[in-house]
Amino acid sequence: MPAPKDFLEYVDSNADAFIKRLSEAVSIKSVSGEASYRPELFGVETQQFDLGKHVMDGQELPLPKVVLGRLGNDPNKKTVLVYGHFDVQPAYVSDGWDTDPFTLTIQPNGQLVGRGSSDDKGPVLGWLNILQYHYENKKELPVNLRCCFEGMEESGSEGLDELVERESKPGGWFDGVDCVCISDNYWLNTRTPALTYGLRGLTYFKLNISGPAKDLHSGVFGRAVHEPMTDLIKLMSTLVDVNGQILIPGVDEMVNQADTEERKLYETLDYSIKDIEETAGGPIALSSDKVEVLMNRMRNPSLSLHGIEGAFYGPGAKTVIPAKVSGKFSIRLVPPQTPENINPLVKAHIESEFAKLGSKNTMELEDLHGGKPWVSDINHWNFQAARIATKAVYNVDPDMTREGGSIPITLTFADALGVNVLLLPMGRSDDGAHSTNEKLDRSNFIEGTKLLGTYLYEVGAIATK
Amino acid sequence: MPAPKDFLEYVDSNADAFIKRLSEAVSIKSVSGEASYRPELFGVETQQFDLGKHVMDGQELPLPKVVLGRLGNDPNKKTVLVYGHFDVQPAYVSDGWDTDPFTLTIQPNGQLVGRGSSDDKGPVLGWLNILQYHYENKKELPVNLRCCFEGMEESGSEGLDELVERESKPGGWFDGVDCVCISDNYWLNTRTPALTYGLRGLTYFKLNISGPAKDLHSGVFGRAVHEPMTDLIKLMSTLVDVNGQILIPGVDEMVNQADTEERKLYETLDYSIKDIEETAGGPIALSSDKVEVLMNRMRNPSLSLHGIEGAFYGPGAKTVIPAKVSGKFSIRLVPPQTPENINPLVKAHIESEFAKLGSKNTMELEDLHGGKPWVSDINHWNFQAARIATKAVYNVDPDMTREGGSIPITLTFADALGVNVLLLPMGRSDDGAHSTNEKLDRSNFIEGTKLLGTYLYEVGAIATK
Repeated sequence: MPAPKDFLEYVDSNADAFIKRLSEAVSIKSVSGEASYRPELFGVETQQFDLGKHVMDGQELPLPKVVLGRLGNDPNKKTVLVYGHFDVQPAYVSDGWDTDPFTLTIQPNGQLVGRGSSDDKGPVLGWLNILQYHYENKKELPVNLRCCFEGMEESGSEGLDELVERESKPGGWFDGVDCVCISDNYWLNTRTPALTYGLRGLTYFKLNISGPAKDLHSGVFGRAVHEPMTDLIKLMSTLVDVNGQILIPGVDEMVNQADTEERKLYETLDYSIKDIEETAGGPIALSSDKVEVLMNRMRNPSLSLHGIEGAFYGPGAKTVIPAKVSGKFSIRLVPPQTPENINPLVKAHIESEFAKLGSKNTMELEDLHGGKPWVSDINHWNFQAARIATKAVYNVDPDMTREGGSIPITLTFADALGVNVLLLPMGRSDDGAHSTNEKLDRSNFIEGTKLLGTYLYEVGAIATK
Repeated sequence: MPAPKDFLEYVDSNADAFIKRLSEAVSIKSVSGEASYRPELFGVETQQFDLGKHVMDGQELPLPKVVLGRLGNDPNKKTVLVYGHFDVQPAYVSDGWDTDPFTLTIQPNGQLVGRGSSDDKGPVLGWLNILQYHYENKKELPVNLRCCFEGMEESGSEGLDELVERESKPGGWFDGVDCVCISDNYWLNTRTPALTYGLRGLTYFKLNISGPAKDLHSGVFGRAVHEPMTDLIKLMSTLVDVNGQILIPGVDEMVNQADTEERKLYETLDYSIKDIEETAGGPIALSSDKVEVLMNRMRNPSLSLHGIEGAFYGPGAKTVIPAKVSGKFSIRLVPPQTPENINPLVKAHIESEFAKLGSKNTMELEDLHGGKPWVSDINHWNFQAARIATKAVYNVDPDMTREGGSIPITLTFADALGVNVLLLPMGRSDDGAHSTNEKLDRSNFIEGTKLLGTYLYEVGAIATK
C-alpha cells in the first residue's frame, strides 16, 4: 500500500519548514554528555527515561535522558519501533570545517552542512516530519509506532541496553513490537538507495603510557630517560599493517575467507573504486579490486589509529617529552568477533609487546566501549516492505549492503525483542559523518522523509505470511 | 676583585621588588611570535632592531624585535656581551599546570612558579637588577656592557644570526666585545652551581602524511583506504629505540665512543641517578650508571618524538581516520653533527622507509629549524672569572657541565665575534623549563643576581695573560 499522495505533497510543500527545524536541531551542541534535546512529538505519548550516571574521563556525569514515544495500540496493526539518536560527534572549526559546525549552512548545491545533519538529526527529524503530517491532517498512522531516541550513541549508548531489555518485557514500553527500523547509516554510493542488513561491531581502546611526573625538556632529558611517546609509538606500530592487515595474533584469523559464491554478492553492488576514492577525496583505495574493498569494509575487521591524547598537538615546534600519553585505537568487528573474545587478544598482544620493550615506564590498557557485530535476514517482510517503499519513492531497487560502522543498539533490539531489525539509511556515502563539513543533501532529507513514511504504509499493508 | 659589599646588600634588600618585576614579566604572554616586551634599561642606550618577517604555519608574521643595549665605552675596561631571551614556550592550564602559567605564583617553599620564570625571564631580569643598582647608586660598571635580548629563542632565533653577524663587524653594536656570557640554562642538579661549556645542537622535523580530502569515519573507511595515521606511526617507530638508540643509519655512528679518560670527566660531577629520577619525577633513567646517563645527555645525540598535529587529541573516543597528520620529532646534535650533515640522513631514511610501506598516501618531510652543537674552552679567563664569582657567592666550586639543550645563538656569537662564550646558569635542574609548573627558586633568582654581578667584577679584574 503506497503512502497517501497528499503525504508526499505535504512533504514537498513543507520542505523549507523541515529544513528550518533541522537547522534548529543542528544548533544544539548535543555532543554526547551534554545533550539537552526535547522533541515535541505530535500527539505522541512521550517519556524521558533517566539512565543514571557514568564515569567519563575521571568525572561522574549524568547520562543524557532517553526519549521514548508511543502512538497507537490497535491490535489489527503492526507495531513498528523506530530508533535514532540526537547526540553528535565532537566538532571544532579548528578541525578544518569551512563553516561553523553547529550552524546549519545551506549550500547553493542543496547540501545542508552541519554537525549531525546526517548523523543522526536529519533522520530523527524525518520521523517527526511524518508525525507532523498525520497530526496536522488528523490522519491515523498505518502502524502502531514506538520511538526510541537517545543521546549517547556516539559514546557507546551507555545505559541503553538495560533500558531496552527492561522495556522489551511484557508490559514494557516495547511490548508487542513486530519489527524495528533504524535510520542511522548511509547509502553505499551517492546514487542508489540502500537497505542494510549487517553492521560491524566495535571495540575502542585507550593505551596509556606514563613515566615522568610532568612534561620534560627534550634537551635536558633526551636519551637520559625512558620516553612515554617512544614506547607508545612502538606499541601502536605493532597493531596494523599499511595494507590494513591486523597484526594482533588471532584477530584476522577468527574470520573465514570468502568463497566464490560470497564474492558474487559483492560483485552485484552498484559500486566502483572511483566511488570510494571520490568519497574519501583521494586515490587511496587499499585495492584496485572493488570486491576486495567492499569485503574489507563489510565483512572483514579493521583497525584504525585515531590519535594520541597528552602529546604535543599544536602547530609549531615544541621540544617537549610528554609525561603521559594515551594512544586511541579501535577495531571494527565482524561475526564471530565480539568485544568479549577480541579484547583478551588485544590485551595479551599489548602486554607481550610492552614486555619486549623493556621500558621502565608504566603501561595501562583501557577498553572504552564496544558493541557486537550484527547480520539480519533480508528475506523478512520488514525488508520486503522497505524494498517496495524504496522502489516507490526512488524508482530503483535498493543496494543490499552491510555497513562498516557500528550501531551497537541494533543487536540489543534484535536480541531483546527477537524481531527483525532493518537499517533504512537516509544519507549518501559522502555525507562525512564523524568528519569535517558533515552534510545531508536536501533531496535526501525530503525524499528520505517520504521513504520513511512510505515504508510505514508498506509495513502496514504487507502480509506477514 | 669581588663585587662591592653594598651591591650584595642592595640585592638582598630589593629582593621583593625584583620578584615583583619578574611577576610583571611572566604576565606578558611572550610566546614567540607575539612578544611585545619593552625593558627599561637604566641609563643604557637601547635600540630595538627590526628583523623583518617570516612564515610560520603558512602565515606571514612580523618577527619580534631584538633589543640591543650599550653602556660604557672605556678602552681600559673589558667589554662583556650578555644575552637572554624574553619569549617563552607555549603553556596552557590544560597541559596540567596547577596555577595559571602567566601569573607568577610564589609558593611557601620559595618557588616562583610561572612560564618563563626560569627560561629565561628570571636571568634577563637578573642583568636588569644589576643595572638598577649601579644606576640608583650612581656607580660605574666594572666593564663595558653590551646586551642582546631577543624574542624568538624558542622558535629558532630566526633572523638573529644575520643581525649578530652584521653588528659584530667594525663599527657595529658588538664591535670590541671581549667575551660573551649567556644565562639561559640550568645547574646539573638542585644543589651545585655550574658553568657550562658545551651545548647540543638541534634539528626539528615535521613529517606530514596526507591522503583523504577530509577526516573519514573509521566504520565506513576502515580497511578500505590507506590511513595516514597508520603510515605515520610506522615511520615514527623507525626513528628511535626504547633505549634511546637512534635508528636512522649514520646518525649515532657519526659520534666517537668515549674513552676511559673522557668517562672520568663525568665521574667527578656532583650527580647521581637519584638526581635525574627526582627531577623527572619517576624511576625511568635509561641506565643505572650515572656516567652513561650523563654522557647520553651531554655528549651523545638524542631523538625525541614530541607529538602529532592533526590527529584526534581530545579526551573520549572519536572514531575518526584523520585526513592529514604531522609527526613532530627532533634530534639533539653533538660534534661533529650539524643540521647540514644530519638532515640528509633523516630525509634518506624517511624516504626509504616510506617507499617500503607501499602506501598511496603522500609524504612530505619539513625541517622546521635547527642549530649546531657547541663546545667552549674552559681554561679561558672568562670561565676563570665565573669560577671565582661562583666560589664567592655560593662558597663551592662549580660543576663543569655540558648541556643537553640547544641555544643556537651561542655558536653564532662564538663564530661571529671569535671570542670565548660562557654559559652561566641561574636556575636548578628541576625548574621544568618547557614543562608544566615551570619555576625559579627565590634563592636562585636573588643569589643568581649576585652571581651575575660578581662575575662582571671578576671579569673586570682578571688578567687576560
